[in-house]
Amino acid sequence: MRTPLCDTLGIRYPIVGFTPSEHVAAAISRAGGLGVLGCVRFNDAAELDSVLDWMDENTEGKPYGVDIVMPSKIPTEGSSTDLNELIPEEHRAFVDRTLAELGVPDLPDGSDERAGVLGWLHSVARSHVEVALRHPIRLIANALGSPPVDVIEQVHAHDVPVAALAGKAEHAVRHVDNGVDFVVAQGYEAGGHTGEIASMVLLPEIVDAVGDRAPVLAAGGIGSGRQVAAALALGASGAWMGSYWLTTQEYLQTMGDSGAMQRALLQANSSDTVRTRIYTGKPARLLKTRWTEAWSAPDAPKPLPMPLQNLLVSHAHNRIHAANDPSVVSMPVGQIVGRMNEVRPVADVMADLLRDYDETLSRLDKTR
Amino acid sequence: MRTPLCDTLGIRYPIVGFTPSEHVAAAISRAGGLGVLGCVRFNDAAELDSVLDWMDENTEGKPYGVDIVMPSKIPTEGSSTDLNELIPEEHRAFVDRTLAELGVPDLPDGSDERAGVLGWLHSVARSHVEVALRHPIRLIANALGSPPVDVIEQVHAHDVPVAALAGKAEHAVRHVDNGVDFVVAQGYEAGGHTGEIASMVLLPEIVDAVGDRAPVLAAGGIGSGRQVAAALALGASGAWMGSYWLTTQEYLQTMGDSGAMQRALLQANSSDTVRTRIYTGKPARLLKTRWTEAWSAPDAPKPLPMPLQNLLVSHAHNRIHAANDPSVVSMPVGQIVGRMNEVRPVADVMADLLRDYDETLSRLDKTR
Repeated sequence: MRTPLCDTLGIRYPIVGFTPSEHVAAAISRAGGLGVLGCVRFNDAAELDSVLDWMDENTEGKPYGVDIVMPSKIPTEGSSTDLNELIPEEHRAFVDRTLAELGVPDLPDGSDERAGVLGWLHSVARSHVEVALRHPIRLIANALGSPPVDVIEQVHAHDVPVAALAGKAEHAVRHVDNGVDFVVAQGYEAGGHTGEIASMVLLPEIVDAVGDRAPVLAAGGIGSGRQVAAALALGASGAWMGSYWLTTQEYLQTMGDSGAMQRALLQANSSDTVRTRIYTGKPARLLKTRWTEAWSAPDAPKPLPMPLQNLLVSHAHNRIHAANDPSVVSMPVGQIVGRMNEVRPVADVMADLLRDYDETLSRLDKTR
Repeated sequence: MRTPLCDTLGIRYPIVGFTPSEHVAAAISRAGGLGVLGCVRFNDAAELDSVLDWMDENTEGKPYGVDIVMPSKIPTEGSSTDLNELIPEEHRAFVDRTLAELGVPDLPDGSDERAGVLGWLHSVARSHVEVALRHPIRLIANALGSPPVDVIEQVHAHDVPVAALAGKAEHAVRHVDNGVDFVVAQGYEAGGHTGEIASMVLLPEIVDAVGDRAPVLAAGGIGSGRQVAAALALGASGAWMGSYWLTTQEYLQTMGDSGAMQRALLQANSSDTVRTRIYTGKPARLLKTRWTEAWSAPDAPKPLPMPLQNLLVSHAHNRIHAANDPSVVSMPVGQIVGRMNEVRPVADVMADLLRDYDETLSRLDKTR
């Protein structure tokens, strides 16, 4: 499994693995892919800095990247306190009532409550870029499409390429016009922020629109070598995998999950996801649980725009996390969750991808 | 492009083409695929019989099949007149008001008004099976999943295999348990009746669930050889294509379309579809037009269950057809509509599929 992307990024296999866990990201890079660490969880740039120090020590000199969440247009700014004033009382009351109905307890007194995730804020994402550029990163990806042109130029000045997610061909063209180097074609089946066009259709459209100017990575629904082969058949230069690493052994090392989230993912089938605005304010695919179902009830308020919605639910997320109940977790994941049925080390996942890819190509040989 | 399916069905290429047009179906069979004629438009079994006579004379002895629309559970029966009594006045008023607002004129006096499509009725679908079995058909496919077991046995008694559409692996298992011989894995991106799981995820799930007992055809989003290659990489034994034939030259020969429908399809991009219950009562992907948008307005009533919804809108469909206005057409089509940008003969489409398939396999060779 080898494409020109491997030489461009200095990796062995064209597998780019997005994950919020530095343990997973480092393991992906060590296994021959490109681990891409999600930065959105770091409200404090100094914390990101020390985690990237850890990455530098644990990747055996192999390349890795980071992922930021930066709108190309500058949205509502302000501190968490200012923004909280913009959240309607109706929404707060709905969240409180829903958590009570779902049996999610209050946080214990004195618990270490984290502030709402501020990584969605433009200023915080810019601080992530600045910190990341002090490390030997090989890629900065932006989950919300093209960053502003000045950020792209700042990154390019460090000889680091920029990748941007796109759910439509017209968006991909705009990204590349802005100077983006790689496009991640995010299909409908993907976890997290996603559009409505499925990979089978989206990928060739984006490849035909920008493929001569920028390599395209396929994102959405990929968890096997067969699916990597399908993505390359459709014209991708590599695969971008996110969800599939959530049930690796390494994931628990970072995230300190009490187990409920992974149990929920292991039990879910491919119908158990929903595309909704309740996580960030923009449409994102999440695991379908009693929490997401509550938001689609007739009495539920409409989600708020980014970044307010995530501030609204961040305290709820902390309570849900502490509750350790698989039936109420709030977790972005793609339709591939139906195939995430055991907890494995990252290196095993990678070995399976390679073996299945080779078998698939041998099978296709017989169709000539 | 060759798989074991070719020998099973006696065809040259593993391309099964579903179409309501006998001219398209015959051309697909002549070009080396399996043309599958949709029967739902035939209220009168004798009319289907004479069209199949025409097929017998125009397929040069090549195999062809038919597609019926038969629920495995027997739904509301009765004549069109009885069923019309079950349609609420609110729904009729909404349709009349909407057509007026969209500028769709009444039908001219004395126009040849066709009755509502009754092919959705169980009894009518059974008459299609009986008529089809008098012809040398090589496949009966059912768009609504497994037909009742007695119908499968009736078809098998004529040495004809049965195919059934499935949008979930558990449905595919049920179909094969009932005796179905081929499963058509219908992805989210497909036109017409479709589920929520995209092909990238659905196809390997269905192949792993039933592939050892029944070959699986990939449906949804296929219009190029790259996409056929992706489908075979994912484990399919062949491709089931529907939408893509709607912009062939042969299509107009049957359907006598005034041109508005094909113009609407040629202009649409891959975002211009919507999955809705307004066509038949079950979720189906349609071209997004002012007609479908009207049904998603806040004042629109909820669609009725099958078969009532199609009876409700059948007169509207006749008026829309006569209006010859691309902005209001009501037409099932998949997300691949974005790549349907010129009117071509079926044989050209098939030749392009083959060439692109071979190029894709050569490209994949270089990734070893």
